[in-house]
Amino acid sequence: MPKTYHFPEDQVHYAWAKDPEPVMTIQSGDTVVYSTREVADNQFSIESKTEDIANLDWDRVYPLAGPVAIEGAEPGDTLEVEIVDLKTGSWGWAAILPGLGLLPDDFPDAYLRTFDLSDGEFIHFSDRIKVPIEPFLGTMGVSPVDASGQAIMPPGSFGGNMDTRQLTIGTKLYLPVQVKGALFSCGDAHAAQGDGEVCVTALECPMHATLKFRVIKGKSIPAPQFQTQGELTPKVNHKGFYGTTGVGPDLFKASQDAIKAMVVHLSEEYGLEPKDAYILSSLCVDLKISEIVDAGEYVVSAVFPLGVVVE
Amino acid sequence: MPKTYHFPEDQVHYAWAKDPEPVMTIQSGDTVVYSTREVADNQFSIESKTEDIANLDWDRVYPLAGPVAIEGAEPGDTLEVEIVDLKTGSWGWAAILPGLGLLPDDFPDAYLRTFDLSDGEFIHFSDRIKVPIEPFLGTMGVSPVDASGQAIMPPGSFGGNMDTRQLTIGTKLYLPVQVKGALFSCGDAHAAQGDGEVCVTALECPMHATLKFRVIKGKSIPAPQFQTQGELTPKVNHKGFYGTTGVGPDLFKASQDAIKAMVVHLSEEYGLEPKDAYILSSLCVDLKISEIVDAGEYVVSAVFPLGVVVE
Repeated sequence: MPKTYHFPEDQVHYAWAKDPEPVMTIQSGDTVVYSTREVADNQFSIESKTEDIANLDWDRVYPLAGPVAIEGAEPGDTLEVEIVDLKTGSWGWAAILPGLGLLPDDFPDAYLRTFDLSDGEFIHFSDRIKVPIEPFLGTMGVSPVDASGQAIMPPGSFGGNMDTRQLTIGTKLYLPVQVKGALFSCGDAHAAQGDGEVCVTALECPMHATLKFRVIKGKSIPAPQFQTQGELTPKVNHKGFYGTTGVGPDLFKASQDAIKAMVVHLSEEYGLEPKDAYILSSLCVDLKISEIVDAGEYVVSAVFPLGVVVE
Repeated sequence: MPKTYHFPEDQVHYAWAKDPEPVMTIQSGDTVVYSTREVADNQFSIESKTEDIANLDWDRVYPLAGPVAIEGAEPGDTLEVEIVDLKTGSWGWAAILPGLGLLPDDFPDAYLRTFDLSDGEFIHFSDRIKVPIEPFLGTMGVSPVDASGQAIMPPGSFGGNMDTRQLTIGTKLYLPVQVKGALFSCGDAHAAQGDGEVCVTALECPMHATLKFRVIKGKSIPAPQFQTQGELTPKVNHKGFYGTTGVGPDLFKASQDAIKAMVVHLSEEYGLEPKDAYILSSLCVDLKISEIVDAGEYVVSAVFPLGVVVE
């Protein structure tokens, strides 16, 4: 009979290790309910201001809930993580952090915004823009085989900080098990994020999460895979999308160009300061590789959902 | 009173030039109806076989219908191209072309498939897979300012071979005018294509296209932009999506890894030969940049719409 466990809120770790002591051990088929801290580990609150960024203790960023051992999981197996439920906490934040993000030279200055998420439906971004809450955990991963005090920020084939917005309610995530017991951890929850997470933060928030685990014996995958339950952007699909592009031989630079053009477009069209347009892009603009095969000149598109614009 | 013109089918060009003689000159607000040739310029037919690829005359690839001059368009203006209507011809083809595409080392051998498109609704790919027709013109562009016998294959800030699947019926495309009269050309039509066009061809086909042109004076954009009328993948949004990922510091390599994993997944799940799974990926799998900001390790996702699977 599968069981449901509540993960203790005070158990977090700030780095990946290959052989951490599991906080709990469960069976394949069991469910774990988490309450995760926002990525800054309670160093911010809804009252926080831009000045508070300077005092951030970076050693406390990325508190992950875990690890959970799943009995019977061995290297070479696949761990299925079904995202049964997600519910955001009552507030969240987004920021420009100097030196980070896709456009660090264009946005060198720190900037923090906080948001009331208590209606559970929308991020009220401006008078004209409200972004639907589409929650997911930015970080879900198994312990990497060679890790020892490994930073959480870079993801890998073990998953981790994938920041992949499709991992929302109903999606099944598949992770390649690297160590005995899999040793799964999660955190870094987002109330909303576009493909790319271009300003380096999503809408960062606490999260209540219910995850169900299943070990798939003998199935190996090279990197994370997932299956969504339905459409990809269900809350904004009813309206059109505005796209900007970057064209060139370097996909990173083309992505920068597409987002620079999007920042200009959003600023002009919706009366936003560029720094707000950049954060809004991080929350709801999706980066697509339109083509990656045309004589070394590639097209990256950034698409903004008009469904976030207040009628 | 805006007019509607029919573009003469025998007028094509095979390179970009900065000052070509326009085939016709229209006013802002006018509409042009085209019948474009498939990208191989009638060198293939529905009877063609893989062996015919070796005889392809590459100088005849990318026949573009144009140029059309739009009176009053000047460098620095924006040309709006409204995609009023698109209707595929009765057949099309897709191919692996040696040395081209995202995975040339994995798929070194030529391979051609042709398809009957006469029902106007689906590409009947296999017993278990039918891909909805979502037509667009792979190439739409204004004449580049410095062009002289410039190859059509690479796109640029002038547009051209953008292979951007969102440019379907109802979308408005915006192009930065570079020369007097804009000198617009189009062709390379696709019955369907995923974001990425990973095998280097989409479902290539003849197309009946109706485009309406408008000059926007004094508005400058750095590269193409567009606005869609509705959701992005309306015909497959009712079902879920299966995603594979590539993780690493190089977006191109991560894209390759995501598509390699997708080819394995589609082959195993739907009984396809890898070469067919690769072409199917080119027709309907979308490449997304899931995150581009996490300590130099990026995630590219390839998503396959389960809506193409026959129930």
